[in-house]
Amino acid sequence: MKLQNIKIVMVGTTHPGNIGAAARAMNNMGISHLSLVAPQCPVGETAYARASGANGVLDNRETCDDLPRAIENCSLVVAASARRRSLPWPELSPAELALKLDSMDDSNHVALVFGREHSGLTNEEIQLCNQMVCIPANPEFSSLNLASAIQILCYEIYARLGTAVPPGKVPDAHDLPAPSAEVEGYIRHLQTTLECCGYLDPEQPGMIMQRLRRLYLRSQLTRNEINILRGMLTAIEKQQN
Amino acid sequence: MKLQNIKIVMVGTTHPGNIGAAARAMNNMGISHLSLVAPQCPVGETAYARASGANGVLDNRETCDDLPRAIENCSLVVAASARRRSLPWPELSPAELALKLDSMDDSNHVALVFGREHSGLTNEEIQLCNQMVCIPANPEFSSLNLASAIQILCYEIYARLGTAVPPGKVPDAHDLPAPSAEVEGYIRHLQTTLECCGYLDPEQPGMIMQRLRRLYLRSQLTRNEINILRGMLTAIEKQQN
Repeated sequence: MKLQNIKIVMVGTTHPGNIGAAARAMNNMGISHLSLVAPQCPVGETAYARASGANGVLDNRETCDDLPRAIENCSLVVAASARRRSLPWPELSPAELALKLDSMDDSNHVALVFGREHSGLTNEEIQLCNQMVCIPANPEFSSLNLASAIQILCYEIYARLGTAVPPGKVPDAHDLPAPSAEVEGYIRHLQTTLECCGYLDPEQPGMIMQRLRRLYLRSQLTRNEINILRGMLTAIEKQQN
Repeated sequence: MKLQNIKIVMVGTTHPGNIGAAARAMNNMGISHLSLVAPQCPVGETAYARASGANGVLDNRETCDDLPRAIENCSLVVAASARRRSLPWPELSPAELALKLDSMDDSNHVALVFGREHSGLTNEEIQLCNQMVCIPANPEFSSLNLASAIQILCYEIYARLGTAVPPGKVPDAHDLPAPSAEVEGYIRHLQTTLECCGYLDPEQPGMIMQRLRRLYLRSQLTRNEINILRGMLTAIEKQQN
């Protein structure tokens, strides 16, 4: 599913700063469709200031009188809520939601519905939704800022849907982990140098070489790094002669 | 690893609202240690208002003059940054960071370092960190609000670590990643030795020290390893005299 098919629906928002911060969070994650249901504040200077340049999201918002209107073209409607109801609704984690969207094709439209700052969504509103998504949080301080909740869900979705094409830059071969033979060549060189400078007793090597080996294998040395490390050893040897 | 062992470090923050919003985001996700490095604003009414009740995080914050001081007891230091450097630092996704923390035991302390609102972290600051974590974002609008970035990382960590972690075997302290101050001590020692043996020209150091730094920070050196590496340097110096 394309990010363009996802709509963020904010119901009864009272603080314009939250609308602006939500627009920025959405735009950061490549999501641009914002729908305001019965907003309780103007979308003006405060909102645009907090949007920090995500003006397009605010300019192109839609405003609806009620939730059914906002979601009418959506085949999946998901309510974001921390509150448990007497009749629990099917619940997804944010990661499960992203997985689900990833499995849907581009003919679908999806709404993610966020409630009021202080009272969330009503039971009636939740019952218009197919599922709920619950953001895990500290049970002793579980109320997230509205725009932060939108940020988390948009991030989860973008991380799965928006990054499908990896950046094309191929690293230089000398910045990739070197083949084993080159690493072993370095370790042998290191051992010889340490014996020459008296740090390592060939008769009683103890655990030192094993520990150094573990360190350098763990590091997955690149060719560039091996060149530097061997250059050091050569410089040290010259000093000794 | 316990959430209590994780510290959020904000460097040079200019907006008190971001400090307050960060405190709320942290508390929502069960993370309470906040460290401010050279803050450029007071932590007063605006910050407490945006914290929305997460007062304990603000009350118990620490303030440091510079980043080395804030991270001195940390065995893993991760820079949050969207910026690519000419010498790229090892990078984690937020999910990979959470996995990594999940695999570490309670003897470790971890710092997540966030830069200034407009200019992020300096190259020098990033080079004090073991790794970078990059939040995937819309390449055309990639600048996240500072508190939003903190929210996303804390969420990823809480989603993985927030449930009880079974206690594991506690390894010897000398086989655990060493604190930053000890790693920095080794890197200084290395540089001195390399200058003495003529491998490094103090006037034209080039990229060598940066590459060595990247290697050793990536490796998360243990105390035992640092002892071995410094022992080598001492042996080499004796040969030179």
